[in-house]
Amino acid sequence: MTADADNPEFGPVVAPDPGMRAAAEARQLQLTKPPGSLGRLERIGNWIAACQGQCPPKLLERPRVVVFAGDHGIARHGVSAFPSEVTAQMVANFLAGGAAVNALARTAGATVRVVDIAVDADTDERVSDHKVRRSSGSIDREDALSEDEVRAAIAAGRAIADEEVDSGADILIAGEMGIGNTTPATVLIAALTDTEPVAAVGRGTGIDDAAWCRKTAAVRDALRRARPVLADPVALLRVAGGADFAAMAAFLAQAAVRRTPVVIDGVVVTAAALVAERLAPGAGDWWIASHRSPEPAHSLALKHLRLEPPLLEFEMRLGEGSGALTALPLVHAAVATLAEMATFGDAGVSGSSDT
Amino acid sequence: MTADADNPEFGPVVAPDPGMRAAAEARQLQLTKPPGSLGRLERIGNWIAACQGQCPPKLLERPRVVVFAGDHGIARHGVSAFPSEVTAQMVANFLAGGAAVNALARTAGATVRVVDIAVDADTDERVSDHKVRRSSGSIDREDALSEDEVRAAIAAGRAIADEEVDSGADILIAGEMGIGNTTPATVLIAALTDTEPVAAVGRGTGIDDAAWCRKTAAVRDALRRARPVLADPVALLRVAGGADFAAMAAFLAQAAVRRTPVVIDGVVVTAAALVAERLAPGAGDWWIASHRSPEPAHSLALKHLRLEPPLLEFEMRLGEGSGALTALPLVHAAVATLAEMATFGDAGVSGSSDT
Repeated sequence: MTADADNPEFGPVVAPDPGMRAAAEARQLQLTKPPGSLGRLERIGNWIAACQGQCPPKLLERPRVVVFAGDHGIARHGVSAFPSEVTAQMVANFLAGGAAVNALARTAGATVRVVDIAVDADTDERVSDHKVRRSSGSIDREDALSEDEVRAAIAAGRAIADEEVDSGADILIAGEMGIGNTTPATVLIAALTDTEPVAAVGRGTGIDDAAWCRKTAAVRDALRRARPVLADPVALLRVAGGADFAAMAAFLAQAAVRRTPVVIDGVVVTAAALVAERLAPGAGDWWIASHRSPEPAHSLALKHLRLEPPLLEFEMRLGEGSGALTALPLVHAAVATLAEMATFGDAGVSGSSDT
Repeated sequence: MTADADNPEFGPVVAPDPGMRAAAEARQLQLTKPPGSLGRLERIGNWIAACQGQCPPKLLERPRVVVFAGDHGIARHGVSAFPSEVTAQMVANFLAGGAAVNALARTAGATVRVVDIAVDADTDERVSDHKVRRSSGSIDREDALSEDEVRAAIAAGRAIADEEVDSGADILIAGEMGIGNTTPATVLIAALTDTEPVAAVGRGTGIDDAAWCRKTAAVRDALRRARPVLADPVALLRVAGGADFAAMAAFLAQAAVRRTPVVIDGVVVTAAALVAERLAPGAGDWWIASHRSPEPAHSLALKHLRLEPPLLEFEMRLGEGSGALTALPLVHAAVATLAEMATFGDAGVSGSSDT
């Protein structure tokens, strides 16, 4: 790894092109529909035009989902309804095409890449080239990662974003799989939004009251360890995140540096996004929120990132990028109307009597 | 037209299969995801399985949009921001593929049929075989239709539903185009939900305050004419609807009779749906609401039909079926996950520790 790749600093984020957004707003008024009548679809289309720096925008032809898989030491302490072995089993399920992310990607016209960042098992060589370590430290009592590991994970996430953008991805989704990962997600969000554990901890994949109490205690203990490093996003990922979180945060930051829009998924990805905004200020201008999960921390993070309201309110809480993939066709619809509709002039349709 | 085709009575509506819904609920628990974690997508998928009478459900391969075009006499009285000639111009735009409905249908994998039910102009022969008349009476002062016309319009809507189902449509959308049509829509909804005009009238395609006052007065006058026939849905369509409304209501009723699910669009289609539920009680079990428009009457009708919450809250107010087409991919996503995901057993993934 070169010194440059190992540097956790990100290049500057340029905002989506405001001139092209204005051009898109003007074009919306010429399309054969009453002004503003496509509502939120118009705003999404205008944003994509600004991201692409062209109006009308191109249809999105290469949406790409990257699923970041990693285990978490905290899962040994009874914070999840599922055992850690499920992480590796689900990686195999992704590769076999049998998971929600696969079905949803086929439907939405996206392709799926799986990367093992920190699965606590040996996985298929097709997914392990960016592996940083097995699992992460139990963040209620120890750092998730060493200094070298957090830098390696950030380098991995950045490299993955670069690989995808260089391969032509025109919209990106980060997904995740990792038993126990809503616990560090909740810690990162509670830390960065200054929220008490009881107001942030949810039911994850479906835990009972006793597990909720254990999870809340773990979040409290991890928060105590996280607060001293709050001002340093790399240290925060090292102490209270994990290799998968560091890679996702870097992926989201680098996507913005590379001027590529991202559809943000659920609580775990949004936690990484909160840190990414610290790594690369302004990155959030390149993101749209897909859905609101029942995890209280998700709403806290969306609000903090000014990504409300999300596109959907479907009570989804699966992860894998499933919420973002479900919402992706809404972005396609927005782009299609802006790119393909006829103007009043082209179609010979009379305009509104006040214009 | 045979006596049978001219009979405004509808066959019985059989509810979507409750046994198949239960089978789908059971299957959801076997798929490789935490129980319930796909949230609303699971309920949509289960509903489609019940509609199809099979689990896992088939992917929806022939979604079909039928756009019902018709003019309204009330449009002469300053209730719209656009002149009536736009209805025929937009029919031409639909046929040329340049309207929102065309762009959205391409994106969502649907095909579009346009039918001129009552356009106040001569239209292309490809769309005029079900034409009932030119325009409809100005409902603030006269009946929209004669007895013969309302029966012909109902027969047209029913025949169109039959044609589409017989041609293999597996999910249907009614769309509409007609300058002035939010006025009769508001009258029908205010009448059937017992609402005062000021609480029901919205801005339609974007009218100013003076036009809003004219529209509210027209709704008030039409409501006075509608109330005596409230108990008779055919008479209500004749007095206060229009040929396009009668055809849409019949289309929606017949789709349910033919056991075909429908994604419901905005305020105009939902007004027709309110009447359709009177024509064929139980029809609403075959419908899902796509979005909530800013028209107050739309929310009134969705609530009355127990179709809340709609899938999207995007402030769309275009019509044409645009809201339903924007939401259609969400139904595809729901079906794809239920139909294509692997089970825990198939994938060798461990279940939750409490099961």
